[in-house]
Amino acid sequence: MVDLHNYIATVKNYPEPGISFRDISPLMGDGVAYRQAINAIADFAKDLNVDLIAGPESRGFIVGSPLAYTMGIGFVPARKGGKLPRKAIQSTYELEYGGVNVLEIHEDAIQPGQRVLIVDDLLATGGTINATREIIEKLGGIVAGVAFIIELNDLNGRDKIMSSGEVPFLSLMTY
Amino acid sequence: MVDLHNYIATVKNYPEPGISFRDISPLMGDGVAYRQAINAIADFAKDLNVDLIAGPESRGFIVGSPLAYTMGIGFVPARKGGKLPRKAIQSTYELEYGGVNVLEIHEDAIQPGQRVLIVDDLLATGGTINATREIIEKLGGIVAGVAFIIELNDLNGRDKIMSSGEVPFLSLMTY
Repeated sequence: MVDLHNYIATVKNYPEPGISFRDISPLMGDGVAYRQAINAIADFAKDLNVDLIAGPESRGFIVGSPLAYTMGIGFVPARKGGKLPRKAIQSTYELEYGGVNVLEIHEDAIQPGQRVLIVDDLLATGGTINATREIIEKLGGIVAGVAFIIELNDLNGRDKIMSSGEVPFLSLMTY
Repeated sequence: MVDLHNYIATVKNYPEPGISFRDISPLMGDGVAYRQAINAIADFAKDLNVDLIAGPESRGFIVGSPLAYTMGIGFVPARKGGKLPRKAIQSTYELEYGGVNVLEIHEDAIQPGQRVLIVDDLLATGGTINATREIIEKLGGIVAGVAFIIELNDLNGRDKIMSSGEVPFLSLMTY
């Protein structure tokens, strides 16, 4: 086992002065660290009866799609507005540094009653995750849990997620 | 084995009148079809001495990251301009339906001499792939091959890629 903290690059004053950005690029670029991180999430997920993995665009794809692959289930991208070619359900959320964004999931991607695990590289304020959750629930899906490689404690994203209903939670590292 | 063609949604007149868009969402949403597609690319890659997988934003992430995971190697995203937090090398390419786009890879993501397999969901004109290749080669990397789930024959993307130097090539389906 490697210490995953050694594979996070901290970029000071990005994207705004005073903010330290936690960049998972070195982790995903290293075969051993990447595999260890995905396997740890798969281990968390194994008792949650998960039917599908969902991840928000676009770093959520890099966490969610190998997880779906190793679990032998499908991956559902939550894409930014206007990128999906077929009928989609959307949700709007406030961006961490101002403004709003739209996420969309294809209407036929989740069937009522399917259990969906939401994953992303990093949990900040939780806005993206709650928007993804809202779409999943509009489609009749059930959020089986949420998992992140990094959780930023000061932004209280975990509380925001739980305020929409308690769900199993995993973060591999906290800052 | 399933017939992967059954997991492609064809969307007529998208994104422009007269164009039929080939959407891999049903394939990635199905655990069996998704795994079969990724495993077929891994089988192609196994004799190419690949050190890293690269994929362009963002559907390339959904193909490339599970491939990297199953091969036990790292994944390098080629991101759209302005999204990477650290020093990056960029390349510009013309979009299929007009305009130009910028792709970027972190400068430290590829070491000289490393062999990189480029993957994407769909090969159209080849502009995105050649831009990704240009960055990899600027960093001293070697393109070990290219692989796609879908190749659009009429757009001659394969010729465009080979015009920058012959490389091993795989497409799982052609339209």
